[in-house]
Amino acid sequence: MTALETLKQRLADVNALNCATAILDWDQQTYMPKGGAEARAEHVSILSRMAHEIFTSEEVSKLVESSKGEATGDDEAMLRVVTRDISLATKIPTALVAKKSRLAAIAHEEWVKARAENNFTGFASTLETMFDIAREEAEYLGYKDSIYDALLDQYEEGATAADAKAMFEAVKGPQVALVKAIVDKGPVDDSKLYGEWSIPKQKEFTEKIVKAIGFDFDRGRQDTAPHPFCTGWSHGDIRLTTRYLPYLPSAIFGSLHEAGHGMYEQGGTKAWDRTPLYGGVSLGVHESQSRTWENIVGRSEAFWRHFLPDLQALFPELSDFTPRSFYKTINKVEPSLIRVEADELTYNLHVLVRFEIELDVLTNKLAVKDMPEAWNAKYKEYLGITPPNDSKGCLQDVHWSMGSIGYFPTYSMGNLLSYQFWGALESELGSAESYIEKGDFAPLLGWLQRNIYSKGRKFAPKDLVKQVTGKPIGAADYLAGLEKKYKDIYDL
Amino acid sequence: MTALETLKQRLADVNALNCATAILDWDQQTYMPKGGAEARAEHVSILSRMAHEIFTSEEVSKLVESSKGEATGDDEAMLRVVTRDISLATKIPTALVAKKSRLAAIAHEEWVKARAENNFTGFASTLETMFDIAREEAEYLGYKDSIYDALLDQYEEGATAADAKAMFEAVKGPQVALVKAIVDKGPVDDSKLYGEWSIPKQKEFTEKIVKAIGFDFDRGRQDTAPHPFCTGWSHGDIRLTTRYLPYLPSAIFGSLHEAGHGMYEQGGTKAWDRTPLYGGVSLGVHESQSRTWENIVGRSEAFWRHFLPDLQALFPELSDFTPRSFYKTINKVEPSLIRVEADELTYNLHVLVRFEIELDVLTNKLAVKDMPEAWNAKYKEYLGITPPNDSKGCLQDVHWSMGSIGYFPTYSMGNLLSYQFWGALESELGSAESYIEKGDFAPLLGWLQRNIYSKGRKFAPKDLVKQVTGKPIGAADYLAGLEKKYKDIYDL
Repeated sequence: MTALETLKQRLADVNALNCATAILDWDQQTYMPKGGAEARAEHVSILSRMAHEIFTSEEVSKLVESSKGEATGDDEAMLRVVTRDISLATKIPTALVAKKSRLAAIAHEEWVKARAENNFTGFASTLETMFDIAREEAEYLGYKDSIYDALLDQYEEGATAADAKAMFEAVKGPQVALVKAIVDKGPVDDSKLYGEWSIPKQKEFTEKIVKAIGFDFDRGRQDTAPHPFCTGWSHGDIRLTTRYLPYLPSAIFGSLHEAGHGMYEQGGTKAWDRTPLYGGVSLGVHESQSRTWENIVGRSEAFWRHFLPDLQALFPELSDFTPRSFYKTINKVEPSLIRVEADELTYNLHVLVRFEIELDVLTNKLAVKDMPEAWNAKYKEYLGITPPNDSKGCLQDVHWSMGSIGYFPTYSMGNLLSYQFWGALESELGSAESYIEKGDFAPLLGWLQRNIYSKGRKFAPKDLVKQVTGKPIGAADYLAGLEKKYKDIYDL
Repeated sequence: MTALETLKQRLADVNALNCATAILDWDQQTYMPKGGAEARAEHVSILSRMAHEIFTSEEVSKLVESSKGEATGDDEAMLRVVTRDISLATKIPTALVAKKSRLAAIAHEEWVKARAENNFTGFASTLETMFDIAREEAEYLGYKDSIYDALLDQYEEGATAADAKAMFEAVKGPQVALVKAIVDKGPVDDSKLYGEWSIPKQKEFTEKIVKAIGFDFDRGRQDTAPHPFCTGWSHGDIRLTTRYLPYLPSAIFGSLHEAGHGMYEQGGTKAWDRTPLYGGVSLGVHESQSRTWENIVGRSEAFWRHFLPDLQALFPELSDFTPRSFYKTINKVEPSLIRVEADELTYNLHVLVRFEIELDVLTNKLAVKDMPEAWNAKYKEYLGITPPNDSKGCLQDVHWSMGSIGYFPTYSMGNLLSYQFWGALESELGSAESYIEKGDFAPLLGWLQRNIYSKGRKFAPKDLVKQVTGKPIGAADYLAGLEKKYKDIYDL
């Protein structure tokens, strides 16, 4: 066997261990009885350790080096990806990784308690230590300009603090102004979307639309989980989850969102299945696809011209709605306190607050203890509202307690990219509206599949964006799309 | 770290890999979309190989040897179990193991086809090769008296062909006579048990009774699978499956059967969780517990004095039944062709046919090509009926195609042991009937838990049986129990 062939076998072993861990995690979040938690934690920890040991072994690194002469085409791309992944997995010393996971376990407990008791002070010193660890990590990972770059690059290859700043600078003014104009028009009544909606009927409808847009149920399924997510372990087995709440759109748009992630995974090139080239290229690009199917497709008027009758057949209490009035209601814009419940338009402003704060803390321009004050001031400035307490303010997200610092901007990159990719799609296929209102999603999915999903991790995310859209990530399509949509809805 | 401590860590690694495989298998049989099959097969094969490599490594064998001086008490028992397991896993050369799995894959395909087309001849030569491989395996495993002993010992430690022969000799005459006497009384009408039974209601009822007898749903669950089974991967996570058919008792007694397996696993000693001492001691003892809860408890009149009103509340079409008439109907005895559909009384006779045939083939007293003739003659002799074709005859079971030769007697051992253990239970607690009719199962489960389940694999099965019942496995309690029950039901 050549070095490359041996390398592929070792990577298949790593893949099997990682996939087993993913299946165990899926099971834990969907079906596992509570008594299973202790053993599950140990099993996952052992399998993860084994995968890490093999992946970061001297043997694998040597095989990568020896393969470099031999590899061409896709194999060359695979080696590039593996080299990056090994580097991310080895640059941070094991001792620091262990220190971080110990702290994360404690921090998570403390964060849960602090949020429940609205006590930021009790959590501040642990959070400070977590930021210290993040700084240490960044030094090991290395960076050119900002310390923030090292952390963001883990989630979004090649992205920098300067990129994120430029992105937010471009969107901040127009988005804040648009939100303000909408608020001035007075509130939209969406009370009809709240009720006791039959779960079997919600399940039927969400599966119907998810299937209609192109998620393949022969190669996947949808279950229920308290915190919906998408996962998967092969081209033929991608799993969505959703949840059913008194606010009917939760399940509908949650399902479309996860299906967007799922179709990206299902659309990979089968020949790369279970290799490092398979799957989403970055968090930002992945999020762009969940947001595409949730917002650009699912929250369009055309979508509801097609599907509202089906929804009304299941829920006759919605029969007063027209596609137009339903469209307006589900796109209600309202500055609110909680990021995960935010509408499409205000969402980016929530992310902006977090980006600015974590950047300032990381670069020692803001002390952790002063975080609540900074948070509240930014909510006032960007969203016009002030959190009544830290539980609904800077304690709301789990990310920092886990040490996921530098992660937030990928959400906004996803938002921008969704419109940017869609612009490229429409410049080739023409307006998507006529496809959507006929329920003819195959041409749209086909385009995304050809241009993005099938590419897997072969190209760096920045290269992929340029290839597909002819330009680097930017705010123009996103802002134009939002302005067009919301000026129409709100008659501005 | 001592050798023993290091050994325990390596065994924990093996446990994590084996548990992951079990979870992947559970998922495959319950929820996996069909597209997942290809990757699942590869993942399971990789994880199994890794577990085998670690378990049979020189390192582990050396650690076992080095630990022997150090170990006392439970650790000593653990080393005995591990030594046996390693020996079973290493005595057969890897090449033969690989040859067997290749053949098994082909044989399974051929068997499915042969059964569908009623073409034994087309399958005979592959089956002959499988028996050749079994003979080879037996030579590697080693035996004293019969070549059959080596194979049976894999499933039931210490059991021999002589044991199995003695068992079947003891039960054959009385069981054949009892079945004949029942057949002479004329058929029982159980047509009221067939219908279109609501699946949610069947689910509700089976979960209710399974919970009532003591299966802990905080540490387990019940799902649906085409071929019901029980599996698990820790003291806190044991999974049952059942299926819903037009014959209502299928789900009820299938669920009780799997719950018997499940309560055995849930009843293990928590301190041994995820070590080689945890779990069932042998197939026969495991089956004794599934048969106990299915037959001795679930098919008793007392059980239905307690639960029939609940069943009737869900299914009013059963309201004409009294506990007595329901008891008689669910215990209908009828010689039939298919083992897995057989009633409690005739079941052993199906197993007997298989045991005699596989023993004769293995010892070259019967050629594979003559199997159908021998099969049909034995069905005529023991059950009074003749299969109309081989699909309903010697092609019905999957076992031989998989190479599971020497496995069948464990089913009958389970039947005998269920009554033998129950005899010991009643000699301590008094008649179980009064507990069952009150729905007070805790004392019964508690006794089994203390005397059998908590013992795990600490003692060899033969030693456990003697400890618990004061005698080796025998037919006396079994025959006495069946005669008492069926003479009452059939007024003999």
